[in-house]
Formats: sequence, C-alpha cells, structure tokens
Amino acid sequence: MSRVFNFSPGPGVVPEECLVQARDEMLDWQGLGYSVIECSHRHERLLALMQETVDLVRELLGVPASHQVLLLQGGAHLQFAMVPLNLLAGSTRADYLDTGAWSQVAIEEARRWCQVNIAASSAEGGYGSVPAQSELRLDPGAAYVHYCSNETIHGVEFGYTPATGAVPLVADMSSHIMSRPLEVARYGLIYAGAQKNLGPAGLCLVIVREDLLGRCGPTTPTMLDYATHARAASGYNTPPTFSVYFACLVLRWLKRQGGVAAIERRNIEKSQLLYRAIDGSEGFYQNRVRTADRSRMNVPFFLRDQALQDQFLQGAAERGLANLRGHRRLGGLRASLYNAMPLAGVQALTAYLHEFAQRNG
Amino acid sequence: MSRVFNFSPGPGVVPEECLVQARDEMLDWQGLGYSVIECSHRHERLLALMQETVDLVRELLGVPASHQVLLLQGGAHLQFAMVPLNLLAGSTRADYLDTGAWSQVAIEEARRWCQVNIAASSAEGGYGSVPAQSELRLDPGAAYVHYCSNETIHGVEFGYTPATGAVPLVADMSSHIMSRPLEVARYGLIYAGAQKNLGPAGLCLVIVREDLLGRCGPTTPTMLDYATHARAASGYNTPPTFSVYFACLVLRWLKRQGGVAAIERRNIEKSQLLYRAIDGSEGFYQNRVRTADRSRMNVPFFLRDQALQDQFLQGAAERGLANLRGHRRLGGLRASLYNAMPLAGVQALTAYLHEFAQRNG
Repeated sequence: MSRVFNFSPGPGVVPEECLVQARDEMLDWQGLGYSVIECSHRHERLLALMQETVDLVRELLGVPASHQVLLLQGGAHLQFAMVPLNLLAGSTRADYLDTGAWSQVAIEEARRWCQVNIAASSAEGGYGSVPAQSELRLDPGAAYVHYCSNETIHGVEFGYTPATGAVPLVADMSSHIMSRPLEVARYGLIYAGAQKNLGPAGLCLVIVREDLLGRCGPTTPTMLDYATHARAASGYNTPPTFSVYFACLVLRWLKRQGGVAAIERRNIEKSQLLYRAIDGSEGFYQNRVRTADRSRMNVPFFLRDQALQDQFLQGAAERGLANLRGHRRLGGLRASLYNAMPLAGVQALTAYLHEFAQRNG
Repeated sequence: MSRVFNFSPGPGVVPEECLVQARDEMLDWQGLGYSVIECSHRHERLLALMQETVDLVRELLGVPASHQVLLLQGGAHLQFAMVPLNLLAGSTRADYLDTGAWSQVAIEEARRWCQVNIAASSAEGGYGSVPAQSELRLDPGAAYVHYCSNETIHGVEFGYTPATGAVPLVADMSSHIMSRPLEVARYGLIYAGAQKNLGPAGLCLVIVREDLLGRCGPTTPTMLDYATHARAASGYNTPPTFSVYFACLVLRWLKRQGGVAAIERRNIEKSQLLYRAIDGSEGFYQNRVRTADRSRMNVPFFLRDQALQDQFLQGAAERGLANLRGHRRLGGLRASLYNAMPLAGVQALTAYLHEFAQRNG
C-alpha cells in the first residue's frame, strides 16, 4: 500500500526522505562497496559519521563546550539507573518531580540507591498538569533534580525549565528532544531514547556536563559509567552503528528544515490544529490536560461515547491514519505528532475528526 | 562501485539478499504503509517478528526448553558485567579461562564483584592456542566458569565444550555464534553481540538457563537483571527493533542455507582454503596459531616482510578485497570469514595471496 500517516507514540514516524536515502544506499554506502550495516565502527568513514552526528546535535541544540554529547545504548530505561549511579557520588538524596508514567518508572529505579524526595507531584489530578516553579519543594542537599519534560503517555509537557540553583538538573527528554529550542547550559544531564524524534530504537542520546563525569563508585559496571563513553567518544564498545547512521540522516533533515526554532513553529501549528479540533467538538472529543501544559508531541484524547472507539479507529485506518489507539494504561485515543509528522497528516486527522463527529454526533 | 568482499572483523559482511529485502521494504513493511523502523514495539507485527526471531534461534541452535532466548542491548561489553551481577548470587568466586583479548576484558570487569580464578591461560604463548580440558584448574566452589569460545583478535577457537561438572558454564560466542552446531544444554549462559554472524550492531543475543534467573541483588539495575527481560519476552523496554528485524532476515537466510550444520561445512571449507594458502606460502605468509585451535571465523596472518604490508593492502583494495588490516593490538593482517562471506570471496583472497607472493617472493 502507499505510505500512511503514522501517529505511533514510538518507535514512530521518521522523515520519508531519510528512508529513501537509507534505501538507496543500503547495498553500497559512500561507494565503499558494502552497507553501512557492514562497516566496522573503527573505519574512518564510520568514525566521521559518529562525529558528524555529535556535531549536529551540538549545533542544533547549541550545546556549550561544558557539555559532552554521548551516543549510547539501552534507551531511557538504562538511564533511569545510570543517573543515580553516576550523580549520587556518595549522597543519599535526590529530588524527583512526578508528572506521569515515565517519571514514576524513573523514581522506582532511583529508590534502589537513594532516598527519593518527590519535589512535586501531579498524581492527584490524574497527571493532567505539570507543577509550577513555585510548587517545587526542592531539597538544597539533593544530589540532583530529575524530571520528565514531556510525558508521552499522559500528554503533558513542561513549558519552562525548572530552576534548581546549584543542584544539577536532569531531564528525560525522550519524547520531545529536538522539537523546540533548549537552554542546555541549565542542565546537568539530558537523555533521550532515539525512537521518537531522532531515529531508530536502540540509540540513546545523552548530553552531560563534564564536571559530573567520573563520580561512579567502584562497583558501577564500566558500561554504566558516563566517563567510559566520554573518554572513548562513544566508541568504547561497538555502537549501534545503523541507528547512529539513521539518526544522522534525521539530524541533517532537521537542519534543512531550519533547525529546532523552525520545527518548533511547525510543531506549535500542528498541535494547535489538533487541540482546536478536539476543543471545538462540543465535548464529542475530550483532552483532559490543562491547556498550558498540553504536549505538542503526544495528544491523548477520548470519545465522549467510548462505545464508538473501535468504529473510530477502523475508519481512521481506512483513511490511512494509523496507530491512534491510546496507551493501555489510559485507554482512549492518542495522536503523536513528532517532528517528522507532516502538517498534511494533522490536517487529514482533523478532517476525519470533524467528519466522524458530524456522522455520529 | 560494485559490491566488494568485506573481510571486516565486525560489524562485517551480512548476506546480500537480506540487504536487498531490507532495501525493498524500507518504506513499507508488510504492507503497513510505513517502515519497520517506524513500527511500535507493541504492534502485533513487531511482536510476531520478535517471536519469530527467538523461534529461529531456538530451532537453529536446538535450544532446549530449559533455556530462555533474550534479545538485549549493550553488546558483549554489558554482558561482562551482567554475568557476575546475575550469576554470583552471593558467591565471591568465579573461574575464567584467559585465551585472548576478549577474555581479558571480561576478567577485568568481573574483578569488580568477585575473586577471579584464572582456571587456565594461554597468555604465555602469546595466545596462540587454547587450553585442553586436562589443563583446566577448575574451582568446584566457583559460581560459574566463563570463557570466550572464539577470540576475534587472536584468532583462536575452542574445538570442544569445556566440562565443568555442576558449575554453570558461560560463553562469550560473539564472533562465532551460528557458525557451527552447539550443545546448548551444556551451558548455563551463552551471549553474543549480533554484529558478526547475526546482523547489525546494537543487538545482543543471550541464551540463559531458567534456573539461573532471579538471583540478582537489590542494587542491580533493573535493566541488567536477565529476569526483567525474560519476564517481558525481551519487551521490557523498547528493543532495538531494526536490528532485531535484520537479524530475523539473517536467521531466515541461515535456515535456507541448511542451518548451522550446513554452514559449518562451508565455514570449514572456506577457512581451510585460506589456512592452506598461508601454510603453503613457504613462510611468505604466517599464521602463528596452533593448527588445532585455529579459528574458522578470524584468521590473523603476517607477511614475513612486513615492509610489504601497505602494498599488500593497496593491491587487495584494488581487487575488491576490503578491510584486511589486522587489529591494532597485533598488527599484521586479518581476514574474517563470517557465515555471510561467500566461498568466492575466499577464493579471490587466496588467488591474490598467491599472486602477491609470486610477485614479491
């Protein structure tokens, strides 16, 4: 069949022109006579690709010289452990903001090594908002402050960067990295699984302030020590080379789009179009997140009459609008609007929302 | 340019027909209208792919019901830590065989958590052989016995499975998994980075006996506990989906070749052809490994006159024989003959060896 609009929460849509390039050079990369899949990670071409990928991250996000860019494996889940193992440095306390499902997983993992102070939680409101700066009860003696800046499942996104004074700020940005400009200098550490805005699963981007390296204890596995990877320019062990390659194609694409400032404008336009369609449906569709905290990337919504849901999904599939089922934890529907989702996809979705509501309202 | 013969030690050659299939369905996988890269790991098609991959591993290697097959990240390097963290189970002693560079890295990592008994070492002989069963000084109180069954850098391969009594046997098979039949039941745990005989880097195959699961201490990261992944059928976190997909294509290919018994015959033929060319060169080329212990996968060799090396490599490249430079630790030359290297590639290499020796001998 022809290409559809894929609203998957991740792994999700990537730019079609990156797929075309990967297809066209699958059997012969850069005239080497073999695939990038078959290229040693010690080959000069592969080393240059790794460097270009890091340089593009630095350029697109304006990463300052104080911070290292690492290309790792294990996804955000491994970061849930690596953050405390690297940043506690003998301390026993860390602050966590609790704003949804992914915050919770990070919190549970951190409890293996330290006392977690929940500096703020939106659990009582069903995670329909994020706390304001004034609501954060920060511990000045915490080793770091961790938060998830965009919650994929609950569809909330921070519109501000928490101020944490001298305590390093750590963010899980898996589901909105590269979707908006970022003040990297304000963070001690940023991490993001690649499978939403960067490329294939199996790659994890880490941006870490250099003074936070080298603090692991002697029983931290070598692979879980950021310093290991920083010293080796992410080549300590064999990197996930195809995933890095594809992420590099995506970053080049993003640069051609005008970078993160330009993509942010498109992301605002796309998400506003969808939220307006939901809010304008007179309750036929509902999004329960406080307006100011709504995610531009992940839009969970519900039909007032949930009995219509299967019919809605079937009609969507027939129109080439794929993967709109909500997360099993919340039910309902969800549209993920990552960088690579074209405006035309959101227009097609909102047209269908309108049509379906007209027919069944 | 056209496809060359790629003797890279890994990531290395994969079957060309797998690349062709990946190319042809890059923009539309199974008629879904999007790429496998863009498919959620929770999608039924992706779950079926994961299951097929595991089933093919089970079928090709004859994995008994007592063992689980896991598809993980982090490569063999992460296994160097996961093995002691999972298998020590309160014990403080483990046996390691020391047969080359990869054994050594595993040993150094294990020393973070236990007292390592070197049950045998071929270091004195420059790692030019592997120890016989009678030479193993095993500790009956060890938590496990670890060895690297094929050393990629030093080019030695075990021709037998060490007998370890009731002590679980653990093997790093990264560079020869799927190249020969295997008595899986004799192992407590087998692991292998994918980037030699299985597919793209970023995937690590683990085969573990079920009674060895669930022995981690409370400060082992969740992601480093085999039980986490066993319980979730390797879907606890987002798996490296494209790498799994490609590995599945490679395993299907291997099955079409007749499986591991058939590929072993071809691997014997290919490696014998090359070793005969080296041994028959009257010392112009030299392989220093004891004949019985020579690897079928990785053939390090040296020119008697090392001043000719650059000229040798240049002439090889001109003939489409790529990546024959030896590991930086040993110098010299190396040809890796993984499953996907066709006999024609080894024939072209041996013809060149002969021609170059004639011209410069």
